[in-house]
Amino acid sequence: MKLLVINPNTSAAMTEAIGRAAQAVAAPGTVVRAVCPDFGPRSIEGHFDETVAAAGVAAVMRREAGPEAADPPDAVVIACFGDPGLAAAREVSGAPVIGVAEAAFHAASFLATGFSVVTTMTRTCVIAEHLLHAYGFDRRCRGVHGTDIPVLDLEDGGAGCVDRIEAVSREALARDRSGAIVLGCAGMAALCEELTHRLGVPVIDGVSAGVKFAEALVGLGLRTSAQGDYARPLPKEYVGWAAPLGW
Amino acid sequence: MKLLVINPNTSAAMTEAIGRAAQAVAAPGTVVRAVCPDFGPRSIEGHFDETVAAAGVAAVMRREAGPEAADPPDAVVIACFGDPGLAAAREVSGAPVIGVAEAAFHAASFLATGFSVVTTMTRTCVIAEHLLHAYGFDRRCRGVHGTDIPVLDLEDGGAGCVDRIEAVSREALARDRSGAIVLGCAGMAALCEELTHRLGVPVIDGVSAGVKFAEALVGLGLRTSAQGDYARPLPKEYVGWAAPLGW
Amino acid sequence: MKLLVINPNTSAAMTEAIGRAAQAVAAPGTVVRAVCPDFGPRSIEGHFDETVAAAGVAAVMRREAGPEAADPPDAVVIACFGDPGLAAAREVSGAPVIGVAEAAFHAASFLATGFSVVTTMTRTCVIAEHLLHAYGFDRRCRGVHGTDIPVLDLEDGGAGCVDRIEAVSREALARDRSGAIVLGCAGMAALCEELTHRLGVPVIDGVSAGVKFAEALVGLGLRTSAQGDYARPLPKEYVGWAAPLGW
Amino acid sequence: MKLLVINPNTSAAMTEAIGRAAQAVAAPGTVVRAVCPDFGPRSIEGHFDETVAAAGVAAVMRREAGPEAADPPDAVVIACFGDPGLAAAREVSGAPVIGVAEAAFHAASFLATGFSVVTTMTRTCVIAEHLLHAYGFDRRCRGVHGTDIPVLDLEDGGAGCVDRIEAVSREALARDRSGAIVLGCAGMAALCEELTHRLGVPVIDGVSAGVKFAEALVGLGLRTSAQGDYARPLPKEYVGWAAPLGW
Amino acid sequence: MKLLVINPNTSAAMTEAIGRAAQAVAAPGTVVRAVCPDFGPRSIEGHFDETVAAAGVAAVMRREAGPEAADPPDAVVIACFGDPGLAAAREVSGAPVIGVAEAAFHAASFLATGFSVVTTMTRTCVIAEHLLHAYGFDRRCRGVHGTDIPVLDLEDGGAGCVDRIEAVSREALARDRSGAIVLGCAGMAALCEELTHRLGVPVIDGVSAGVKFAEALVGLGLRTSAQGDYARPLPKEYVGWAAPLGW
Amino acid sequence: MKLLVINPNTSAAMTEAIGRAAQAVAAPGTVVRAVCPDFGPRSIEGHFDETVAAAGVAAVMRREAGPEAADPPDAVVIACFGDPGLAAAREVSGAPVIGVAEAAFHAASFLATGFSVVTTMTRTCVIAEHLLHAYGFDRRCRGVHGTDIPVLDLEDGGAGCVDRIEAVSREALARDRSGAIVLGCAGMAALCEELTHRLGVPVIDGVSAGVKFAEALVGLGLRTSAQGDYARPLPKEYVGWAAPLGW
Repeated sequence: MKLLVINPNTSAAMTEAIGRAAQAVAAPGTVVRAVCPDFGPRSIEGHFDETVAAAGVAAVMRREAGPEAADPPDAVVIACFGDPGLAAAREVSGAPVIGVAEAAFHAASFLATGFSVVTTMTRTCVIAEHLLHAYGFDRRCRGVHGTDIPVLDLEDGGAGCVDRIEAVSREALARDRSGAIVLGCAGMAALCEELTHRLGVPVIDGVSAGVKFAEALVGLGLRTSAQGDYARPLPKEYVGWAAPLGW
Repeated sequence: MKLLVINPNTSAAMTEAIGRAAQAVAAPGTVVRAVCPDFGPRSIEGHFDETVAAAGVAAVMRREAGPEAADPPDAVVIACFGDPGLAAAREVSGAPVIGVAEAAFHAASFLATGFSVVTTMTRTCVIAEHLLHAYGFDRRCRGVHGTDIPVLDLEDGGAGCVDRIEAVSREALARDRSGAIVLGCAGMAALCEELTHRLGVPVIDGVSAGVKFAEALVGLGLRTSAQGDYARPLPKEYVGWAAPLGW
Repeated sequence: MKLLVINPNTSAAMTEAIGRAAQAVAAPGTVVRAVCPDFGPRSIEGHFDETVAAAGVAAVMRREAGPEAADPPDAVVIACFGDPGLAAAREVSGAPVIGVAEAAFHAASFLATGFSVVTTMTRTCVIAEHLLHAYGFDRRCRGVHGTDIPVLDLEDGGAGCVDRIEAVSREALARDRSGAIVLGCAGMAALCEELTHRLGVPVIDGVSAGVKFAEALVGLGLRTSAQGDYARPLPKEYVGWAAPLGW
Repeated sequence: MKLLVINPNTSAAMTEAIGRAAQAVAAPGTVVRAVCPDFGPRSIEGHFDETVAAAGVAAVMRREAGPEAADPPDAVVIACFGDPGLAAAREVSGAPVIGVAEAAFHAASFLATGFSVVTTMTRTCVIAEHLLHAYGFDRRCRGVHGTDIPVLDLEDGGAGCVDRIEAVSREALARDRSGAIVLGCAGMAALCEELTHRLGVPVIDGVSAGVKFAEALVGLGLRTSAQGDYARPLPKEYVGWAAPLGW
Repeated sequence: MKLLVINPNTSAAMTEAIGRAAQAVAAPGTVVRAVCPDFGPRSIEGHFDETVAAAGVAAVMRREAGPEAADPPDAVVIACFGDPGLAAAREVSGAPVIGVAEAAFHAASFLATGFSVVTTMTRTCVIAEHLLHAYGFDRRCRGVHGTDIPVLDLEDGGAGCVDRIEAVSREALARDRSGAIVLGCAGMAALCEELTHRLGVPVIDGVSAGVKFAEALVGLGLRTSAQGDYARPLPKEYVGWAAPLGW
Repeated sequence: MKLLVINPNTSAAMTEAIGRAAQAVAAPGTVVRAVCPDFGPRSIEGHFDETVAAAGVAAVMRREAGPEAADPPDAVVIACFGDPGLAAAREVSGAPVIGVAEAAFHAASFLATGFSVVTTMTRTCVIAEHLLHAYGFDRRCRGVHGTDIPVLDLEDGGAGCVDRIEAVSREALARDRSGAIVLGCAGMAALCEELTHRLGVPVIDGVSAGVKFAEALVGLGLRTSAQGDYARPLPKEYVGWAAPLGW
């Protein structure tokens, strides 16, 4: 199967790293292609960044998975922890679309009665909290914690990041009485193994989880519902740079 | 005070109509300026449309109310019932920003123990429902009902639209045991008076409500919190058409 | 417009102070009249006080805004943070009625993703918590905190009160990760400006907010729904001191 | 034990009938005394009525169960389905206080996975709904239904009332998929047996349930918590007719 | 009345102790019989233990209260704080069945605006939390706290247990701002009086509460609903040791 | 990987059918072994059946996946829509355990904004509703509908069953405004393809979904958390037939 992984920010390095992480966990027959929008922020650390990035996801979906796409994917993963553009992406085609935040929440729910999220900037905690509430995981998640590590610092993956995430995770496990840690940023994918080793509880990276759940849905022959809320967008003129996004 | 009304879609006619509706209800000292993005969909009838439109709102805010704006507004109203780009807009400046859906929900809550929303396409009901849940109005609202009137048909404001909205409203009032109707589209602003007359219950148009609540907040000297989740975006490079949106 | 501000307790000094605070923020054309019941507690610091005070609000409404009122108001604000008698008041006439607690919660919701309430006696926190739950703001509000300042001590407005409220507010902002403070007592209205200055975040006084939202509703031509739950009371004999309250 | 049953309305006939119903179900050693306030509405069919009646309950409690009471009760039942004055009453003394609405909801929860409430005027449904939400029974209760029988018509207990309640109950059981009926008015106590016979499911009258739960709490030696939210009211001057209610 | 108290674990000593506690609080006419299953764990300290014990409760119910029972009880109390097998037990006969956890939650709700649960092993807190959520008490309960006392250590009732429970309770009352303590284990019944004395707030033991509520329901003539979700099980073959449980 | 599929009822035919359905969707390297308990009901159509069956699941887990198991599985699926014994099973070993109800709910959440459940006996709807609430899917699921087809009638898979399920599903999709159907019984697995074809929306069978999600978790190297609520049961004596289940 062809799996499109969309990094909603415009960091080429992070796009590549996410692609590698996705391919590493993919099944033998799964071909991962990681892309990012050609516009928008270099990293996503607030609502403004996220709102522009969501449009980037929509644009990528329209081009790569829309009715005129040359080689449409069988499934899509949106690789930013705020799941930007998720609902928009689901209207574009029947290929299942999974956000890495929701993927991580679902995975954690299978493994522990309660989990904690450890993310980057404290100011983005509220984004995760809103997702948890919207998705119905607000009782399963017992706490969202910021590390105040800037997203792009994760590119280097230095020991400092791991130590800081470990420390915040340990405090979260104790204070929240949690049984698992969800990493709250797609850029943390590469640190998942080391943190699992250090913490001794399930540590869940949404990118990997998204890939495997996407494979699962394709394996089940399930596609996004075309009836109702995720139906194909209505025919409509778009203007400006967005003209090609019209239907 | 200077009030910026942002129509998130790119219909000039609707932008103008919304501006007129806003000015009509504004206090003597309030100068309304209605604008729309220079890119995006002509109307908003689904998640895809809305996601691109939200980026349009962010772009307008950045230009009109950001730190380099020549003549920044004292308050902002986002005039589309999905409140696209609301959180992003609140990060741009301290000027209070109000979405017309939230404005209408708040107004209705002051007037009735329960209200019903009557909107355009049935497929957009879920957008209103998600907002109600996110905002905490899911118990106050007793039902969201589609009329399946396309948004742009409202531009003409023909009798057919009013009759259809009236019929759906009457059924909603009875079935939901509601005491008020919230009009679920900024394009219905011009029909509010006639519907109030016909239905005999409070009929709430979010554009008008948004204008008056914006005036109220400015009158109170209150501004969007700069601490925490709505703090100014972090310095960051944006690329592509979005390059001017960087911080 | 004529705005009736009802102080539910029977402190003449507080009634006067609340009236001054209301008039100070009112629009040029708004004439504020502040009254209190002729029976009931001098201050409200628990359920028992509040229950009697709510009947006081009902009695004032019946006399000042009922069908036989000589000069009925265009809108009403109930100026005690428990919003006592709010639903009863809404049945009396079509004039919009706003409680200062709900007004403050609504205002805060426009300005921050989360707010904290700082109130007087710790034992009254539960009253605010029940209102937040009933109104649907229980997720927006991240904490309710007592200062254990008796309500009538606020009449003097000594520096001690401000310092204590400031200290509790600072702790609340940090611990709750909040972006705004709601003052949990109508008697704190006079301290709002100073606290705003000290804390550097939006500090919301419900009396002021109630006045401006009342003006907004009147400006919109909206009235309390006469259909359903807030319909005029059914004809009925009342006895004892309450005989004049019959319908 | 001495059980005080407070009928919050001022109908002597209904007070007597409620007293009879309470005594009929009471244990041998329980002496029921039924009283009503000396002020307020003859029946309670809306928020205004209820707000004044709640003050009546507070006044009765202050006199009959307060620190100066000659012969204080061991427990109290408030016999109106809106549970008016319940929190106030709990502050007056340590004697357990039970509202008939909460009593009925608790009883129904022991007997069925879901129940329906059948009440008098449709306009009072919202009062029951607010209680259900406040108490946490909003999922257990699957529907609240009005019969539009005026409260005082229940005094006669004519066959018409029973037939109407039976019909609405049958529809509720089917439509709500419920297993039990809660009678939503203290005035329906006398009809409970006949309705149980006709409907073949548990039919719960709050007055009876309140009596037995009050006996249960007394039998357990449990008293209202004096710590925190239900602590004795603070010392305070009351004025007007309410002067004797001061502490 | 005949009251069957089922101890879901297989400790004879604890069964006897629970029976004594139940009889001590029972009304003169109530004859308590305490039994336990003939299979299953000696104590219940996790989901696995509880799942097997729930089947034990079902088996006891089938034998003691099923259609072939020689001397069926008038009511049943399930005396383990997880309420194992409660729904199953309610299908067996019309005799009311009460779990001690739910009994304690209901009792506490009559006495305080908020309560805290103090239980045995921290790992079982989640069981109480799930019950609170399922029953609708998740807002009334402000905290669930483990003491990490093994269940069987309670059999001795040594001073160490009481001291530890007292300490955790004091911290819970302060931190949770609670007005009452619910003892989270049927094995704590014997300590209730001493803890009440030490803590000065209502301390609720579910076994006692369950007995009195069972008496209350029988006194009301109420039986488990036979309509719908708790209807008698459908005719069905059971195999293995469970063969006698078939219907 | 070795996948253990546990059919909680004791129907050999259904166990075999479920095993076939599981193997059909499994990845090439997945070896499915389907087993059922050696005690308990032939089918599960109520709480009593389910409670005994849950103990059956615990017993199978103890034997097949416990510390003394000769050939423990890499993952486990519990194939009954009430997810009986799920929490108990998770304490037995680190192998991920998935219930088919939760699997189906998770899958549906990826594909539609709202789904409807179509199950067997109406009396079991409440079991699904309780799971939805416990898991946090109560907003995603817009309705649970019974067909009143006995579980064992599904073994034949006659056209009657499919027609009845189709009819109820069509009504559910329209009335609930849903975009997907979840089949509420493991015995419906074989009908999934035909119903998908007829209904034109995603139709989700929990057995298949459980298999693929189990493979996904194993592929991610994730195991049930051993810390906290799902930790290995404490050492403990079990008696009677359950003696071998002790730890």
